[in-house]
Amino acid sequence: MQQLTPYQIRQLCRSGEFASNTSGLAPGFVQANMAIIPAAYAADFLQFCHFNPKPCPLLGMAARPGAVDLPQLAQDLDIRTDLPRYRIFRHGELVDEVTDLTTVWRDDLVTFLIGCSFSFEEALLADGLEIRNITERVNVPMYRTNLACQSAGVFSGNMVVSMRPMKPADAIRAIQICSRFPQVHGAPVHFGDPAAIGIRDINQPDYGDAVTIKPGEVPVFWACGVTPQVAIANAKLDFCISHAPGHMLVTDLTNSKLAVL
Amino acid sequence: MQQLTPYQIRQLCRSGEFASNTSGLAPGFVQANMAIIPAAYAADFLQFCHFNPKPCPLLGMAARPGAVDLPQLAQDLDIRTDLPRYRIFRHGELVDEVTDLTTVWRDDLVTFLIGCSFSFEEALLADGLEIRNITERVNVPMYRTNLACQSAGVFSGNMVVSMRPMKPADAIRAIQICSRFPQVHGAPVHFGDPAAIGIRDINQPDYGDAVTIKPGEVPVFWACGVTPQVAIANAKLDFCISHAPGHMLVTDLTNSKLAVL
Repeated sequence: MQQLTPYQIRQLCRSGEFASNTSGLAPGFVQANMAIIPAAYAADFLQFCHFNPKPCPLLGMAARPGAVDLPQLAQDLDIRTDLPRYRIFRHGELVDEVTDLTTVWRDDLVTFLIGCSFSFEEALLADGLEIRNITERVNVPMYRTNLACQSAGVFSGNMVVSMRPMKPADAIRAIQICSRFPQVHGAPVHFGDPAAIGIRDINQPDYGDAVTIKPGEVPVFWACGVTPQVAIANAKLDFCISHAPGHMLVTDLTNSKLAVL
Repeated sequence: MQQLTPYQIRQLCRSGEFASNTSGLAPGFVQANMAIIPAAYAADFLQFCHFNPKPCPLLGMAARPGAVDLPQLAQDLDIRTDLPRYRIFRHGELVDEVTDLTTVWRDDLVTFLIGCSFSFEEALLADGLEIRNITERVNVPMYRTNLACQSAGVFSGNMVVSMRPMKPADAIRAIQICSRFPQVHGAPVHFGDPAAIGIRDINQPDYGDAVTIKPGEVPVFWACGVTPQVAIANAKLDFCISHAPGHMLVTDLTNSKLAVL
């Protein structure tokens, strides 16, 4: 499975043969968060991404409402079928989890793709840094913070962050590496005291799983792609779609192409 | 005084009209730490700098023993007269502080110039960050650590660090900015718990002055140019010369030229 190309993975999603977590698949290639929103709200959402590039780094946006392709990111893409699993929301509530959007698709839906931490985690691992959630084989811990995003139209909310514990010298190196990748959340937004950004209990993440913080380590916090999902949920849109957590779009873009330096 | 060019400042040092601290002079231009060592130890010292580039970033080295010029760093330089104040050491002991080396100069002396934190402090200030020792008008606090340098011949010792307290988000920005300037100590080497690098009391620096650490701030530690001075002192050379603390060589090189990105 790990040896498949992004195109092959998308084809297996399309045929229904693959409907699982994409973590670890197609090493070297960018995986993306996805949000699909009615055109009436698309301009607001685009502005929200523009105002909040660290949690909402926009990798791509469909050229027009109803378009199911994004040729700059994935060859022969059909966004309705080429992710393993989707979540459907009505009035802000999760109503269904499906592997195919064909029956719910509408001509007014606009697709947004947003950078994901998998890309910078790969760069950190390649440098020899340990990533605790990978070592402990759990989801990265994520927390709601008191850092307000800049609102845009119907979209507002506080930033969600992911956390990876590191020794300070490793955290400094991670800041350097992640600074090269602004389209996948870039440098961390905070380290150290969780309470300084409104996190009450580091051992009780709001999403994902707690990880061990060893003596001498500090929690390091990155802006997280769950932020736009929270902003969308806050907006209680009559209809919207996201990927299921961890079930990302595997694109044809290499992670290396996202490095600005 | 602040409006003088580096060349004019060096000429005033040469004539004896200026013999003070160079902090704040010739904004935008690189100031350098200086070490003058007998040729017998020069190869060892060069290797020590090579092994320990963060505390000992070599900006320049005289082309041959006895040479008093470094044309790549300063026009018409006479290293014996063009710094405001020098310290002379014999067998590891400070024996004299002078404003002119002409009478003690020897044909076997080799000059080394090493990057100084003034350059990155300027870049941090230009970005809008506060530097506490500048705000409080004191010398930056410096500490001996338990981080061992890699020894080279007669030179060995632990790293000395300078400390600037910052909020974590500012520290992350400072790491990004300083990473662009490897020749002036580069990114910090540590932040947070002083004990992790062998510092017992953050309020009792080994050199310089203590500064206020406000609630929500963490101490951020940079490799410091005092490190090679300690290594030279440890070697108890029969003879060597350094600049007096804060009385640097003002070069013709702009700080901007040191940016690798």
